[in-house]
Amino acid sequence: MRIERQALHRFICNLLETHDAGERQAAAVARHMVWCEMAGRGNFGIERLPILVKRIKAGVLAANADMAWERLEPSLARLDAGGGFGYDAAERAMSEAIAMAKAGGIGVVGVTNSNFFGAGAYYANQAAAAGMIGIAMSNSFPKVVAPDGLRPTLGTNPLAFGAPRQNGRHLLFDMATSALAGSTVREAIAKGTLLPEGLAIDSEGKSITDPAKVAEGALLPLGGAKGFGLALMVEVLAGLLTGAGVGEGVTSMYNDFSRSGDNGHFLMALDIGRWINREKFEQRLEMLATAILASGPGTRLPGEQRWDNYARAEREGIELDPTQWDAVVKLAQAAGIDLGC
Amino acid sequence: MRIERQALHRFICNLLETHDAGERQAAAVARHMVWCEMAGRGNFGIERLPILVKRIKAGVLAANADMAWERLEPSLARLDAGGGFGYDAAERAMSEAIAMAKAGGIGVVGVTNSNFFGAGAYYANQAAAAGMIGIAMSNSFPKVVAPDGLRPTLGTNPLAFGAPRQNGRHLLFDMATSALAGSTVREAIAKGTLLPEGLAIDSEGKSITDPAKVAEGALLPLGGAKGFGLALMVEVLAGLLTGAGVGEGVTSMYNDFSRSGDNGHFLMALDIGRWINREKFEQRLEMLATAILASGPGTRLPGEQRWDNYARAEREGIELDPTQWDAVVKLAQAAGIDLGC
Repeated sequence: MRIERQALHRFICNLLETHDAGERQAAAVARHMVWCEMAGRGNFGIERLPILVKRIKAGVLAANADMAWERLEPSLARLDAGGGFGYDAAERAMSEAIAMAKAGGIGVVGVTNSNFFGAGAYYANQAAAAGMIGIAMSNSFPKVVAPDGLRPTLGTNPLAFGAPRQNGRHLLFDMATSALAGSTVREAIAKGTLLPEGLAIDSEGKSITDPAKVAEGALLPLGGAKGFGLALMVEVLAGLLTGAGVGEGVTSMYNDFSRSGDNGHFLMALDIGRWINREKFEQRLEMLATAILASGPGTRLPGEQRWDNYARAEREGIELDPTQWDAVVKLAQAAGIDLGC
Repeated sequence: MRIERQALHRFICNLLETHDAGERQAAAVARHMVWCEMAGRGNFGIERLPILVKRIKAGVLAANADMAWERLEPSLARLDAGGGFGYDAAERAMSEAIAMAKAGGIGVVGVTNSNFFGAGAYYANQAAAAGMIGIAMSNSFPKVVAPDGLRPTLGTNPLAFGAPRQNGRHLLFDMATSALAGSTVREAIAKGTLLPEGLAIDSEGKSITDPAKVAEGALLPLGGAKGFGLALMVEVLAGLLTGAGVGEGVTSMYNDFSRSGDNGHFLMALDIGRWINREKFEQRLEMLATAILASGPGTRLPGEQRWDNYARAEREGIELDPTQWDAVVKLAQAAGIDLGC
């Protein structure tokens, strides 16, 4: 199943607007999903539409949320996402962080009362495209144990980073701080594959490889104490500081329909030009990139695979997963929407 | 060998001042090393004195360096460390970041033209002790390969994070972005132990466990692409942005006596009170801490072990490694210094 980007964008907007999303909110979700599909990260693409619609219908995702800004300092602001789309809140937050960084060299926006924000790389790329260094973090519901822990206490708490490259294929780095991303577990369930040994445990601490059992168990942090420390850093910055839910205060988008996610996000932009001539920065980055690419057969830079996929999608259209596409087509038909593509 | 903290501080100051260090510079190194010894992190304590003295004598460590401030914005500054002690430069940089955060909610200082800065946790703790969230990063000489790489292109590039706790035992998290820290490799060499399988490779990419062979080989990044991405983030922020050496531009403190390290550091402080009532923040952190500590037998918070060691050293004096102490005593005797302890 191949689709042109504008057509996919319109389709997502139609579907969400039919389900009470505001025009701005729907367009933000569509931009995010189209970008992720183009970058070959289907886990953060249309696959999420059914659960979003389900949450809107359950009244736990405010598809037309009012969001409220609170100015803390010339370089700091908080955005109350009003229980709306994390995609919309985080995109607006990074835009504001970039604007503050243009004015004063640095900008930080904390988002509270939000929901799942998708792929952090999208927001890091916003900053990179504006000639800035970008950092994006989000907390999420407890799924990861501490070293020697049996019950999960922190989320997979992703951390993303971006920096501009001359050729527009910006450095983009996006990681779950757990040994496995939640989306990887769901992908394994969908495909019927097993997880590698030693990345997830059951409630007694025994290693499990059946992805369906992770819901009752937990994921291990990346590299033990290091990954857990990183997850805690994300929890402090994105959750504790912003006033969002923390630990059990954040709900699972797939398993808890009693209330909004209450996720928090942390978005930061740093203006490179304040520190060093932009061209010189990019030259230095290219020297480093050249050294990394020459350091062994098959070495790559973070982000390169996304940009290869992106360029292919620009040329050939977006290749969608047929199962995922079928699911959203059914959703559209149930809502009586003309697919328009 | 047990020593009282003030005595160790005076001894380090005497030794360094005899080797041309300024009073301020020597005291900064002493504070750092005494804190690390108390916290049970001997790898960043007096063990480094012989190499520091050797580098001063070789003329590649400016023990009495003039450092120059460059104000970039109300929240941003750069410190040119003048080829001096990284310990001194990073401590001053974090102090200034804290001062800027007091004034405007956030402060970032980039340090250029510096050297090895020891343990990032020390600087993160400065911020935590001031009621702030602190982040400290440094780049270092190439020792880590990219995934599928054969030649090292990035350093072990540490990343540290701190946040205040009510009980003064602040959250402190400090990690090398490589699978092993450089100091762990040197410790294994000193103790004659082998490295775990799969963390280091020779120049052909084969796994090695003999720590002495790492010098000719390389360390793997923590968890493959994730650790390498984190190392690159540190390199961009601490090296590229600040104007310091990058990649091969940074030298090994143990193996290259031709020039200064040219390390770069990145220090950031965020004032919690701008975002949320300080007491409420600490209550939220304690709730999370309680959940983590109750989540399994033996779970701990990042930093707790350091504070246990620190409290013991306060009660009983600092326990020094006898081999390391012998080495610095010889150094002092060679310089004709009264040990004073």
